[in-house]
Amino acid sequence: MGLVNMWSEDFESQIGFLGELGMIDLIQEFLREVNPRYPEGIGDDCAVVDFSGNKNLAVLTTDSVLLGRHFFEDSDPYRVGRKLVNRNLSDVASMGGVPSTALLNLIVSPQLSKQWMIRFIEGVYKAASDVNLKIVGGDLCRGEDRQFIGNMSLVGFAENPVLRKGAVVGDSLYVTGKLGGSILAKHLDFKPRLEEGLWLSKQKEVRSMLDITDGFAKDINSLLTREIGVSINLEVFPISEDCFLLAQESKKSVLEHALTDGEDYELLFILSKDADGIAFHQKWGRIFDLELTKIGVLVKQSGIQDALTGKTIEGFSGYEHF
Amino acid sequence: MGLVNMWSEDFESQIGFLGELGMIDLIQEFLREVNPRYPEGIGDDCAVVDFSGNKNLAVLTTDSVLLGRHFFEDSDPYRVGRKLVNRNLSDVASMGGVPSTALLNLIVSPQLSKQWMIRFIEGVYKAASDVNLKIVGGDLCRGEDRQFIGNMSLVGFAENPVLRKGAVVGDSLYVTGKLGGSILAKHLDFKPRLEEGLWLSKQKEVRSMLDITDGFAKDINSLLTREIGVSINLEVFPISEDCFLLAQESKKSVLEHALTDGEDYELLFILSKDADGIAFHQKWGRIFDLELTKIGVLVKQSGIQDALTGKTIEGFSGYEHF
Repeated sequence: MGLVNMWSEDFESQIGFLGELGMIDLIQEFLREVNPRYPEGIGDDCAVVDFSGNKNLAVLTTDSVLLGRHFFEDSDPYRVGRKLVNRNLSDVASMGGVPSTALLNLIVSPQLSKQWMIRFIEGVYKAASDVNLKIVGGDLCRGEDRQFIGNMSLVGFAENPVLRKGAVVGDSLYVTGKLGGSILAKHLDFKPRLEEGLWLSKQKEVRSMLDITDGFAKDINSLLTREIGVSINLEVFPISEDCFLLAQESKKSVLEHALTDGEDYELLFILSKDADGIAFHQKWGRIFDLELTKIGVLVKQSGIQDALTGKTIEGFSGYEHF
Repeated sequence: MGLVNMWSEDFESQIGFLGELGMIDLIQEFLREVNPRYPEGIGDDCAVVDFSGNKNLAVLTTDSVLLGRHFFEDSDPYRVGRKLVNRNLSDVASMGGVPSTALLNLIVSPQLSKQWMIRFIEGVYKAASDVNLKIVGGDLCRGEDRQFIGNMSLVGFAENPVLRKGAVVGDSLYVTGKLGGSILAKHLDFKPRLEEGLWLSKQKEVRSMLDITDGFAKDINSLLTREIGVSINLEVFPISEDCFLLAQESKKSVLEHALTDGEDYELLFILSKDADGIAFHQKWGRIFDLELTKIGVLVKQSGIQDALTGKTIEGFSGYEHF
């Protein structure tokens, strides 16, 4: 894969050649059963979804993939399409939600090759069908030369949505998986932690949760407050193999990568100080084959401290969008 | 208005200077009560909305405004923001829906001036608050140089969503308002026909409906079938004043403009042949101060015919996105 050219010089293999209706037909064709036709389908002004009788709360999210930012001209379009869906699913996972229904927006220049588009939609299909997500509508806009923007908006439902608020001094901080080095592959290939998020949302000891997208050092702040910081045990901080690989090539340390690299898409959550941490870890281990690490404790001092030295960890920040 | 420069050379008056959180703060500030904070607000991974107990069907839609396509660098940002919301509301109107909840996506280059952004958000606010639409979340992405893309996804509810299907030979075709020449002003200033759409959805004689966005000649086709066409009375076709103005400057006829110009955002609907047309018109007139015109009758011959000559009207098509 990745051998499909993003742009085509040959008009008949460009999506522009298909025209708008042709593109919609193509998208419907490759979305297969994740694009139910009637009464929910593409082709009317709105998508129609029956929410009636649902006792859960709806969770809504939206995320995009931009050329040059979330993928590149030589990226495998299948993985790009999958990433677009999975970025949204990761947000749903971090709420403890179950994905339901989505809208797909594409802004594309007519020069985009049809093959690229097909592989992209196949990736969207794969990620959606894996979790029974229905894509019920969307919008297509003609973009400028060599422009491609994929955007998705998603509705899910959650019995007990886990927010970012609720930290209490003495609580523990946990993270799933291993962090850092995502740019080498994981940013395209990550698995959204839906099952884990759903399970965590059912454990009443779990106070708050997010998915790490802009790097641990930045995202952790939205679980903390002005009065409550966290003391991190850097010796157990879970570092991915790709993080070590990346640090060999870059001028930054392994730890800086692990703390600041974006697009980990792992869950970061707070466990109540009243919980039995060992029993919690054991329960997790019986269900999931995924690392879970207690990396710190919430303390009555703002910011991030190194548990070993007691010093504030400064100068690290995650991905800043602007 | 329109005097705010879209781009700024001065870093401190660019949105890039605010940083991501600063931009979110700014957006929240100017969205005021249409951006409820908790439990629905911006700031968590997902927006949380209580759909429980709702007996209606949800209607979902999404639409964008792109620089150079839906507005220009010298467009009034307030009207651009309003247009983004109203484009989505027009889709909801055409289903007979009531808008509920929306997500706002922005892809903007950091050089965008803060003033432009503020006026844009004020326009979003105005259109949303006018109809009690809540904007509960969204996403911000850094765009390329001089790039601005606004996108909205919207959830509404409809007791009885009016689809595009259902045409029967002998039915009548109606249109609200006057068509053509929208590019002169209406494309930014149109009023989404929400009240009219809701009322129409409650009249059981109304079979199908859409909002005209890509021009009558194109959009009419999605109300027709291979077997069912429409015979149009061109003598009563409702033509806007701006359509006459525009035709004076362009090389096209007034009628061609009225039939093909995009962005009318008027409702086009089909009334059952069993309905009493005169009584229907009278009921409408007692409620709405808006033109309603019966422009044609559905016939057993595909395409669009001129009722006067019986000839097929060809060579006209609406706005083609690709």
